[in-house]
Amino acid sequence: MIIMEREATPEQIEHVINEIKRFGLRADVSKGKFRTIIGLIGDERKIPFAHFAALPGVKEARAVEAPYKLINREYSRLFEGTGEHRIIKIGDIEIGGDEPIFIAGPCAIESKKQLFRIAEEVKQAGAHILRGGIFKPRSSVHYFQGLGGVNMEKAEEASRWLYEPGKEFDLAVVTEARGENQVDLVAKYADIIQIGARNMYNQDLLTKAAKKNKPILLKRNFGAGIEEFLSFAEYIVAEGNKDVILCERGILPLGKGKDYTRYTLDLAAVPAIQKETYLPVIVDPSHATGRRDLIFSMSCAAVAAGASGLMIEVHYNPEEALVDARQMITPDELSAIIKTCQKVHQLIVTEKS
Amino acid sequence: MIIMEREATPEQIEHVINEIKRFGLRADVSKGKFRTIIGLIGDERKIPFAHFAALPGVKEARAVEAPYKLINREYSRLFEGTGEHRIIKIGDIEIGGDEPIFIAGPCAIESKKQLFRIAEEVKQAGAHILRGGIFKPRSSVHYFQGLGGVNMEKAEEASRWLYEPGKEFDLAVVTEARGENQVDLVAKYADIIQIGARNMYNQDLLTKAAKKNKPILLKRNFGAGIEEFLSFAEYIVAEGNKDVILCERGILPLGKGKDYTRYTLDLAAVPAIQKETYLPVIVDPSHATGRRDLIFSMSCAAVAAGASGLMIEVHYNPEEALVDARQMITPDELSAIIKTCQKVHQLIVTEKS
Amino acid sequence: MIIMEREATPEQIEHVINEIKRFGLRADVSKGKFRTIIGLIGDERKIPFAHFAALPGVKEARAVEAPYKLINREYSRLFEGTGEHRIIKIGDIEIGGDEPIFIAGPCAIESKKQLFRIAEEVKQAGAHILRGGIFKPRSSVHYFQGLGGVNMEKAEEASRWLYEPGKEFDLAVVTEARGENQVDLVAKYADIIQIGARNMYNQDLLTKAAKKNKPILLKRNFGAGIEEFLSFAEYIVAEGNKDVILCERGILPLGKGKDYTRYTLDLAAVPAIQKETYLPVIVDPSHATGRRDLIFSMSCAAVAAGASGLMIEVHYNPEEALVDARQMITPDELSAIIKTCQKVHQLIVTEKS
Amino acid sequence: MIIMEREATPEQIEHVINEIKRFGLRADVSKGKFRTIIGLIGDERKIPFAHFAALPGVKEARAVEAPYKLINREYSRLFEGTGEHRIIKIGDIEIGGDEPIFIAGPCAIESKKQLFRIAEEVKQAGAHILRGGIFKPRSSVHYFQGLGGVNMEKAEEASRWLYEPGKEFDLAVVTEARGENQVDLVAKYADIIQIGARNMYNQDLLTKAAKKNKPILLKRNFGAGIEEFLSFAEYIVAEGNKDVILCERGILPLGKGKDYTRYTLDLAAVPAIQKETYLPVIVDPSHATGRRDLIFSMSCAAVAAGASGLMIEVHYNPEEALVDARQMITPDELSAIIKTCQKVHQLIVTEKS
Repeated sequence: MIIMEREATPEQIEHVINEIKRFGLRADVSKGKFRTIIGLIGDERKIPFAHFAALPGVKEARAVEAPYKLINREYSRLFEGTGEHRIIKIGDIEIGGDEPIFIAGPCAIESKKQLFRIAEEVKQAGAHILRGGIFKPRSSVHYFQGLGGVNMEKAEEASRWLYEPGKEFDLAVVTEARGENQVDLVAKYADIIQIGARNMYNQDLLTKAAKKNKPILLKRNFGAGIEEFLSFAEYIVAEGNKDVILCERGILPLGKGKDYTRYTLDLAAVPAIQKETYLPVIVDPSHATGRRDLIFSMSCAAVAAGASGLMIEVHYNPEEALVDARQMITPDELSAIIKTCQKVHQLIVTEKS
Repeated sequence: MIIMEREATPEQIEHVINEIKRFGLRADVSKGKFRTIIGLIGDERKIPFAHFAALPGVKEARAVEAPYKLINREYSRLFEGTGEHRIIKIGDIEIGGDEPIFIAGPCAIESKKQLFRIAEEVKQAGAHILRGGIFKPRSSVHYFQGLGGVNMEKAEEASRWLYEPGKEFDLAVVTEARGENQVDLVAKYADIIQIGARNMYNQDLLTKAAKKNKPILLKRNFGAGIEEFLSFAEYIVAEGNKDVILCERGILPLGKGKDYTRYTLDLAAVPAIQKETYLPVIVDPSHATGRRDLIFSMSCAAVAAGASGLMIEVHYNPEEALVDARQMITPDELSAIIKTCQKVHQLIVTEKS
Repeated sequence: MIIMEREATPEQIEHVINEIKRFGLRADVSKGKFRTIIGLIGDERKIPFAHFAALPGVKEARAVEAPYKLINREYSRLFEGTGEHRIIKIGDIEIGGDEPIFIAGPCAIESKKQLFRIAEEVKQAGAHILRGGIFKPRSSVHYFQGLGGVNMEKAEEASRWLYEPGKEFDLAVVTEARGENQVDLVAKYADIIQIGARNMYNQDLLTKAAKKNKPILLKRNFGAGIEEFLSFAEYIVAEGNKDVILCERGILPLGKGKDYTRYTLDLAAVPAIQKETYLPVIVDPSHATGRRDLIFSMSCAAVAAGASGLMIEVHYNPEEALVDARQMITPDELSAIIKTCQKVHQLIVTEKS
Repeated sequence: MIIMEREATPEQIEHVINEIKRFGLRADVSKGKFRTIIGLIGDERKIPFAHFAALPGVKEARAVEAPYKLINREYSRLFEGTGEHRIIKIGDIEIGGDEPIFIAGPCAIESKKQLFRIAEEVKQAGAHILRGGIFKPRSSVHYFQGLGGVNMEKAEEASRWLYEPGKEFDLAVVTEARGENQVDLVAKYADIIQIGARNMYNQDLLTKAAKKNKPILLKRNFGAGIEEFLSFAEYIVAEGNKDVILCERGILPLGKGKDYTRYTLDLAAVPAIQKETYLPVIVDPSHATGRRDLIFSMSCAAVAAGASGLMIEVHYNPEEALVDARQMITPDELSAIIKTCQKVHQLIVTEKS
């Protein structure tokens, strides 16, 4: 990476690029508001950094091993003169703003009636965004794949079932695009396109979704380290779409014996990621724990850790839900969680300042 | 799961289905060569298995929790009267047959010349199938994505570069379809469609690739247990395509400190999977270890463990390779590996019988 | 496991035991305040539970696979008529009581002066217990092993350095017994005997420490599931010592790429363990994250998740510390954490009730 | 680390040590057969390597981050002029020599009769060393802890039961010292002292066992990376005992769903460790897989990977064994394994040369 001086002339930049070519390397030029940064592509061991550092107009030339940079706070500060938290706006909702945002709804969409009832109840409980799965990425082909699994007509119908109560109860809506061919439909009806944990590494899906210029909710894969999570978020931002909401939803549990929680919720990832990038981070305690009786505690903990929001599975009758019945909570429980989390958030903010 | 008697009449089957509906459950009827098996979909805790077991024509009614069945050896035996190893034929090549099969070639396709040279050399070394990546699923958007990453014209050109030496040197060819929109192209030029480890959970890609009715080489995700690996292979077979080659390529390393191998090669998965399913299992020691100096040992170990073949990255000049230089071996090294592995295989087969 | 009726007669119990022997099994009889419970030892598949269930005086006979029972909340309720949170008292300090408890101090004890200064400052910051390592379980024999690593005289001297400021500033003290031969010394000077994460599986050490009848602070091994953690806590309670403080301190990180935190702090383990056992659970954010800048967030999150206390590494000059310099915080930072955590705890308690 | 020239004078060495002290650092002087190497202890960031490199008699001064060095092949070559495979001799048996060594016997010692019978049968099958557990490190206090768990008299009796058939059938014997207080007894009767996987991190046990100057069989902890495994082996060698046999026995399985093998056997660790250290590496396929039906395959694979030996649980009647019944094989199966493994070993050695 070669960082040019802020006052570097176009000729100086041109000269650097020519030198890069002369050494058999490729140049990846990024002209920012503040300065130009030139990436070097080629065998890193052979790059003569000292040579480049001495060229006129060059501020710094050094190896960068980070697999992401666009979403990096420090890079952003250097390059664009900003590295602030990014606030993602959907109507009046601000994700990454002053207040935690609550996303709630059923795991899978079952009927229009179900969704209207849940939408009304989660709105009353204080939620901002309605969730509901149309295309479910199930671990077996023999399980219910969501209504989207039937055919695209059914999928479109289910999309409208999600869209309409969203409008009626003034809730933004989010649903998952499980494959590339579902991106158009999801982008048509949803305010936020969700990429599920199993698809975090699916760069073609990320790229396609990114191009819709709608906010993307990207879930961390359960086997991914933080560096990989951010590297794949970078695939979205590389398409020019900076509205990425990162979601921690638990990583693979470790150790012998029965699992007391479905996954291991990695809450330290929340502040760790926030220090690394300006993108907002939310937490999904439902999938992470898989246990209705732990949602309250882990929601409070997530907000205390600094999460910008929560994504929680809610059903008026958890027993009846076709998918993930054990981890659903009721709208009443959601209401208690939202109230407490808002107070926890307020307390932490006050104490920190 | 309700297993009907072999001589069950259509009326008896019909009656069972009606009873299933009467209990508010859905029936998933599979008529095999040998017998009919009816899957029950609904809340498992409420299914009256004893009631169903007593109906005329029913041999057995019991809960089955396995997320896969079509690829299960026992199920296959019961249902179709067969559970033998599946031999996947591509011309004269038999994957899962009497001899281990060797897939070799560069990580990424760089040029036509490169591929012709490597094809000729791996053929001489004894390889059966030529590999070469067009679309590379890289961990950073800033890394070289393969020639397919440039545009679809370049991708098609690279596909021909793979196809032609395959024909010339009588090698079958395999390459990865990284996204749904690449399946058509890959199916047009390659004999085997590869689904990479990062896409193992990408069920829409699996489903689309399956429909091409070409053999699918499915790599295990590095965070996937064996049950999940088989459950996603089932997505392919559920489309009617039984030609699935399973590939163990290492799972996430564990523990603190530096990694001495890139991933942990799970060789016990080879016989464990073979006992569970009739599909052939191969091993990729290159990605698993990430170390050129361990390929020989781990190839021998894989064949000793019963693998039906190996997939190895080969380059005439490993230092020059644009991707994965550290894990490439030379054609000469490949030749030594193939010779030794064939002897190990022969020895084990002789000893076992 | 055979659970006798509360009013079962000695003759009925005797009869059950005889029947057990008649079937070639061994009986493990536990007479509780409330009822007698008889464990069955032998091949579980062959135990005729139905037969035993029908014997007079038997309330229930069923297979129990749990590797622990003494610390199980439900078992305790059944057996002793209690399953309440256990409050461990050390002078005025109540671990598992109404308020979170704060354990603070340096990683390793370096000098008497160091310890007096830190003791005074953490006391002022609001801490209740002073920690300081004498015997350090280091990952290399070439690293500083704590003063206890020099010889036993030095170890005893360091123990007094810990003991004296504890008395002077009215702080209980805790230090680790790394091996069996250190238990006597640690028990002589410390109020709480710590068993480190690397020794969680060291049952001989657990057993020896348990017999001292002092509270044991047991840290979870970084590769241990919750079931294993509890099963090894059971080794202590099996010696008749119920004063076990469980400490979550992070499990092995997962995934490729650099680690943004040293371990993965498993905060959901806190409420999950609390539902399973009556023993108090505390959290060590210092070792879990390895990052000074994450301690505040993760401390708040831990208390929000319901932790009964925190164990935090503190040094007046973190840069100077011989061990773990990167994760130490200052007394001032500790003070801010304690104040905020107490408010978070109060808020959660109020909201829940 | 400061490496002195081979012809450095005592005065030069003295001078370097004085300089080290002058900088407030401590010197750890190792005088080898070939040269003197001086370790520097202190804050690494502040060490003026360039200054030391310029002192007379100094060959090289550089930072070394490896947590082990004594067992490192390269260090050994430099320091002692040797880095060859270490051959550990017990009578006629050579571990790390030309032939793979087979250790076999029951998981737990049950009776004198059991042991004599198994000893005779494994000897006939071709085994070299008899194993049998006296002190079993079980995952629950409620499980059978081995005869050593009863009392020390019983433990001594069981030790003789192991010792006598060893003598009678000319087999070396190995058993585990689970705690520090068992080291004397084990060292008295066994030829090899085993340290179990759960105790790999127990440095006080390692140190105590090392001092007995008998070969130590050190099992890798299931959550330990290779670097940690070697770092703890270094604790033994640091006591002057270089007879350490490293044993790979499986690491924690990963991923959701049921486990098809008990642990993940990390066979690539075998050649990876061999390249790093001169110590011999053996493999325990019994604990790694937990499945009798996989022992044959994984034994062959281990030997093909280069293992210096195998440790296998054998019982004349696996069904009857009190512990680990599912993973035991019969003496007949052992015989087949030994015969095949010897041929695989011979084949690999021939092919390599």
